[in-house]
Amino acid sequence: MPRYKLIIEYDGTPFSGWQIQDNAPTVQGALEAAVKAICGEDVRVHGSGRTDAGVHALAQVAHCDIQKPFPPGRLRDGLNAHLRPHPIGVLSADIVADDFEARFSAKRRHYRYRIINHRANLALDIKRSWRVPRHLDTDAMDAAAKRLLGKHDFTTFRDTECQAKSPQKTLDQLDVIREGDQVSILTSARSFLHSQVRSMVGSLVWVGEGRWSADDLAAALAARNRAACGPVAPPEGLYLVRVEY
Amino acid sequence: MPRYKLIIEYDGTPFSGWQIQDNAPTVQGALEAAVKAICGEDVRVHGSGRTDAGVHALAQVAHCDIQKPFPPGRLRDGLNAHLRPHPIGVLSADIVADDFEARFSAKRRHYRYRIINHRANLALDIKRSWRVPRHLDTDAMDAAAKRLLGKHDFTTFRDTECQAKSPQKTLDQLDVIREGDQVSILTSARSFLHSQVRSMVGSLVWVGEGRWSADDLAAALAARNRAACGPVAPPEGLYLVRVEY
Repeated sequence: MPRYKLIIEYDGTPFSGWQIQDNAPTVQGALEAAVKAICGEDVRVHGSGRTDAGVHALAQVAHCDIQKPFPPGRLRDGLNAHLRPHPIGVLSADIVADDFEARFSAKRRHYRYRIINHRANLALDIKRSWRVPRHLDTDAMDAAAKRLLGKHDFTTFRDTECQAKSPQKTLDQLDVIREGDQVSILTSARSFLHSQVRSMVGSLVWVGEGRWSADDLAAALAARNRAACGPVAPPEGLYLVRVEY
Repeated sequence: MPRYKLIIEYDGTPFSGWQIQDNAPTVQGALEAAVKAICGEDVRVHGSGRTDAGVHALAQVAHCDIQKPFPPGRLRDGLNAHLRPHPIGVLSADIVADDFEARFSAKRRHYRYRIINHRANLALDIKRSWRVPRHLDTDAMDAAAKRLLGKHDFTTFRDTECQAKSPQKTLDQLDVIREGDQVSILTSARSFLHSQVRSMVGSLVWVGEGRWSADDLAAALAARNRAACGPVAPPEGLYLVRVEY
């Protein structure tokens, strides 16, 4: 039975996240319905990880095993046809080795968080970014961000409902880049805790607004206490950009 | 009575274009309602030009005369507050000379047309671009585009309802640029005919798909006949990017 690797783009706005639920629209649910429509099989589509309600993906990765053989290009086109009008695009489908696991084979996840830093209403970027009206000192944010790099107990930046066994994670990248009014926060790690990126971003915005120093951010990390976290950034600015294998 | 210059971003999707109409939502109508809400005055907001239903603007320019004096930053913030939840952002408001005219003072308009050139469904780019599934030869498109530069009778690329007195226009720029699956068509001129950009883009896509040669495109221009035009590209890929004064 061939195993397929899918690369998937989606707009998270209308979905209650990636993970399938009984009474809410989810990306995983839409994909599994599309697979069933094509081949009649009840197939589990395994993602590289969950994304929360409202969070987007440029290149989520998933795998699934389908009994009926498909040329990969036909599977991609058929899934796209059955996914419409959901804002989900299957960018590619490829046959992979049987031991490929979208979640467990992943070596690194890359996220981007988009902030629009101006006072005007969002227009084209509604539901695509977080508007922060106060001017952000992005140099200060980038410098402070470096204090979170490396292996730490990230309890402060972890949702209280996070199910990971350990709060220890190794953060490989956390860069803050300004291009005009747009501020991008780029981060990568083997894996992240639940809400970790949004929790780090919200705290970095406090640094950018001058409410926190880099030392305050480092102290929040060292506190290993969820109550020490800054605000949690809203989901609509977050994009799963790439999963490395 | 001070004259204000406004720079405005909008998502064209929910609007029946820029120009005010009695029974349809328009950008101009939303702006005039916001001005009235702030100062109680019935004020005409004059744009640099109309955009069609579904066409976006990153920086449309408009002017209006308001009797009640406002610090420009307060006018900007007040307009933004009253425009919500419309996807319209007033990026800036500035006091300008009394002879500034958003339309007639404009020296050059810049547009961008966005194509996503792949087979997958659009997800994050729904209503933000045109999906063209067949591979486009963008080098051929860019080379052919140069045949339209300069002063010509653009009757072929003009909507039959266009109200301009003359079909003669001078095209200053028409570049086709590929970045991965994204194809951008950048164009600028002192002014454009109605549907001119979308008509040129649709015809260039025929070149990119191999249906037309550069000579076919030049022949279409020389025909000075609307029937010689290729397809008209849909509005959702078109952005008014900048107006030069």
